[in-house]
Amino acid sequence: MSLPLSKQVEKAAAEARTCGRLLQQAPRSEILRHYASLLKEQAENIFAANQLDLEREDDANLKKRLKFDLPKLESVLSGIETLAAMPEVLGTVELATKLDTGLVLERVRTPIGVLAIIFEARPDALPQIAALAIKSGNAALLKGGREAGQTNALLFSLLREALGTYAPAFHLFEGREAVESMLKSKDIDLIIPRGSKELVTYIQQNTQIPVLGHADGICHIYIDDTYEQSLAQAGDIVLDAKLTYPAACNSLECLLLDKNLSTSFKLNLCRELVSNQVELRLTPSLYQLVQSQPFFQPNLCKPATPSDFGYEFGAAILAVAEVDGLEAAINHINTFGSGHTDALLSESQASFERFFQGVDSSSVYHNCSTRFADGFRYGFGAEVGISTGRMPPRGPVGVEGLLTYKYRLVGAGHITAPYGKSKQFIHEPIKVQKV
Amino acid sequence: MSLPLSKQVEKAAAEARTCGRLLQQAPRSEILRHYASLLKEQAENIFAANQLDLEREDDANLKKRLKFDLPKLESVLSGIETLAAMPEVLGTVELATKLDTGLVLERVRTPIGVLAIIFEARPDALPQIAALAIKSGNAALLKGGREAGQTNALLFSLLREALGTYAPAFHLFEGREAVESMLKSKDIDLIIPRGSKELVTYIQQNTQIPVLGHADGICHIYIDDTYEQSLAQAGDIVLDAKLTYPAACNSLECLLLDKNLSTSFKLNLCRELVSNQVELRLTPSLYQLVQSQPFFQPNLCKPATPSDFGYEFGAAILAVAEVDGLEAAINHINTFGSGHTDALLSESQASFERFFQGVDSSSVYHNCSTRFADGFRYGFGAEVGISTGRMPPRGPVGVEGLLTYKYRLVGAGHITAPYGKSKQFIHEPIKVQKV
Repeated sequence: MSLPLSKQVEKAAAEARTCGRLLQQAPRSEILRHYASLLKEQAENIFAANQLDLEREDDANLKKRLKFDLPKLESVLSGIETLAAMPEVLGTVELATKLDTGLVLERVRTPIGVLAIIFEARPDALPQIAALAIKSGNAALLKGGREAGQTNALLFSLLREALGTYAPAFHLFEGREAVESMLKSKDIDLIIPRGSKELVTYIQQNTQIPVLGHADGICHIYIDDTYEQSLAQAGDIVLDAKLTYPAACNSLECLLLDKNLSTSFKLNLCRELVSNQVELRLTPSLYQLVQSQPFFQPNLCKPATPSDFGYEFGAAILAVAEVDGLEAAINHINTFGSGHTDALLSESQASFERFFQGVDSSSVYHNCSTRFADGFRYGFGAEVGISTGRMPPRGPVGVEGLLTYKYRLVGAGHITAPYGKSKQFIHEPIKVQKV
Repeated sequence: MSLPLSKQVEKAAAEARTCGRLLQQAPRSEILRHYASLLKEQAENIFAANQLDLEREDDANLKKRLKFDLPKLESVLSGIETLAAMPEVLGTVELATKLDTGLVLERVRTPIGVLAIIFEARPDALPQIAALAIKSGNAALLKGGREAGQTNALLFSLLREALGTYAPAFHLFEGREAVESMLKSKDIDLIIPRGSKELVTYIQQNTQIPVLGHADGICHIYIDDTYEQSLAQAGDIVLDAKLTYPAACNSLECLLLDKNLSTSFKLNLCRELVSNQVELRLTPSLYQLVQSQPFFQPNLCKPATPSDFGYEFGAAILAVAEVDGLEAAINHINTFGSGHTDALLSESQASFERFFQGVDSSSVYHNCSTRFADGFRYGFGAEVGISTGRMPPRGPVGVEGLLTYKYRLVGAGHITAPYGKSKQFIHEPIKVQKV
């Protein structure tokens, strides 16, 4: 207990590595069900611990995120039960090839190893994320926020109880100093930061360990001139994308209007946004149009500044620009976007094919709201985060994204020397069950 | 032309990014065939350029790697033709789900973006790697060795000729300084170093861009006591793994013998290795056994030192240790291995299942030589490298490993607000063609 924190993290990661190797053989769905039942049993104690955390906090916004009440517990339990009911994800064969008679290659799904999951005030993240790790057979070091210290401590002790002999696969830390040690650990294979842009950027820039996540969610919708007749639908989609949860990473930050859309389309859409209390940051030609309108309100209709593009407002504020056609829109999105989610509203299938190919983002949409970008909505059951990097896993990441693979080659005394001489490889694909 | 090198790299990467976005729509197989025909036409000029490089070089080993002759050209051409003949890899749908009526999610294979490929003296790497990039629709910055300057320049100018209007997707640099700039580029998505352990380690430790590759190839074979009756096969496999190409990363560096194998098995195997001029580094009990044997030769039978384990000899030298059972072998491999390729020789299927699960490496084998770990041998047609990291792609990486994916969601005006209230997600899997 007198070990310095950096040594504690090192020791915990090594323990997680060793114990994690056994976790894939453990009855993981049973562990999940056991954890759910412990959480249910201890509900009153959890709420009481949470009360202690809440009492120390003054900030109303933080209090809201910190709160762990019955609805949150129910949502956590439903998530864990969904995961427990999902079929086994480990051991699936993704690819199989007969290299030669009696020599078969398979690519088999396996856990990644040890995850470091760094989350903020929300204590419900702890059981959700731990459950995803258990389902995928990964060990994990968790770093919670000090604000949620009492709640996290209890949620974690129930987790360790449910894990039984596999408890050393999971460890809980608090505080920024623990993060520093995690960033350097040789026994951590993937870091998943769930927090502020600053935290994610800091982690991405200060570790050689792969990082899954996103610093920014700067989502765009481009409306082309074939959508002229679908004003009502355009309005619904833009309002859904902007207003259902402005702080979410999949919310709309920038609307691109094709310059060939009619003036009335542009004005009607702006009016609808303004009447829904969305503050617009308009490029000059649009600002000029809007300025003379009856719905013009100086506090909601402002000229855009260059810094309004490529910026995550996280509030009921929207940058709006006119663009000169599809290629200009694609170019705008690739320049100012963050690789998260971008949508085209268009009646043209060909335009969408080009848009899909040209936009570099991890989710590219046609005629729907950007807010569908979410692991639950995608049908993954749960989500560990959304990755805006280029390498897989990207986009919303569920259990599957926490898996990697190993090649398995089974022979009967096969050696390589004869190939290319007396023997040739067959390379015959073997059908595998698509899951 | 008077731009400093760092600015040249930055400009080239930005050009590669922009032009690379078009490359996925290009007739990529035609470009590959065009490149192959240009290489054939210009064979004599290529050999002449290579002669100039060879004349400047004194080191015989380096000369061997530097040489670009007819057999090497033929192997390059055959690789390019194989790639050109492979079916299209982009646009494949890996996963499809009906989220709701008229709302379909697909995960579609796409290129990663811009690769930085850093290779050493071998000029044949340039056309091989460029062909893999073209097939997978990726742009690339190539960094060749100065030693191969004349050869690379010609091979690259033919590549740009074959690329035609897509030429700006590829750029060639020389020298370590170019590498420094690549490590910092915002327009490079994946770095693939093919070179010395020092180069790979340096790159891994000095960039936040994902790196695909391996610094070490420290492969193990563990023989358990059920293999007692298969001495001849064990000898063949160990010799194949050690001697067919000792400098290769998939060659055997450490042999683990179960302590319950008979003394005669152990001695016979050691004798066969010594008679094939393999230098053994033996743990004390084995050294003692061997020391009294007629085949003992002091220059080939040496006591092992701790640094012999976890070391890539890259030569006809082999560390040999006795281990106490399967778990000890797994533990040894996870401690001293490099995550490359490790094999079990055993008659027990159950032991292999445990070995496969317990060993963390990217390729885990049963009853065959470690030297099968290779993209061509796995049936991938070609190989960009072997990755020993945990995250995909790992193991031998072919065209498929140079792809990532995008989510594509197509709706008909769908918004998220009604879900969970008046609407529910269907999440109905749609069958996709397994490729």
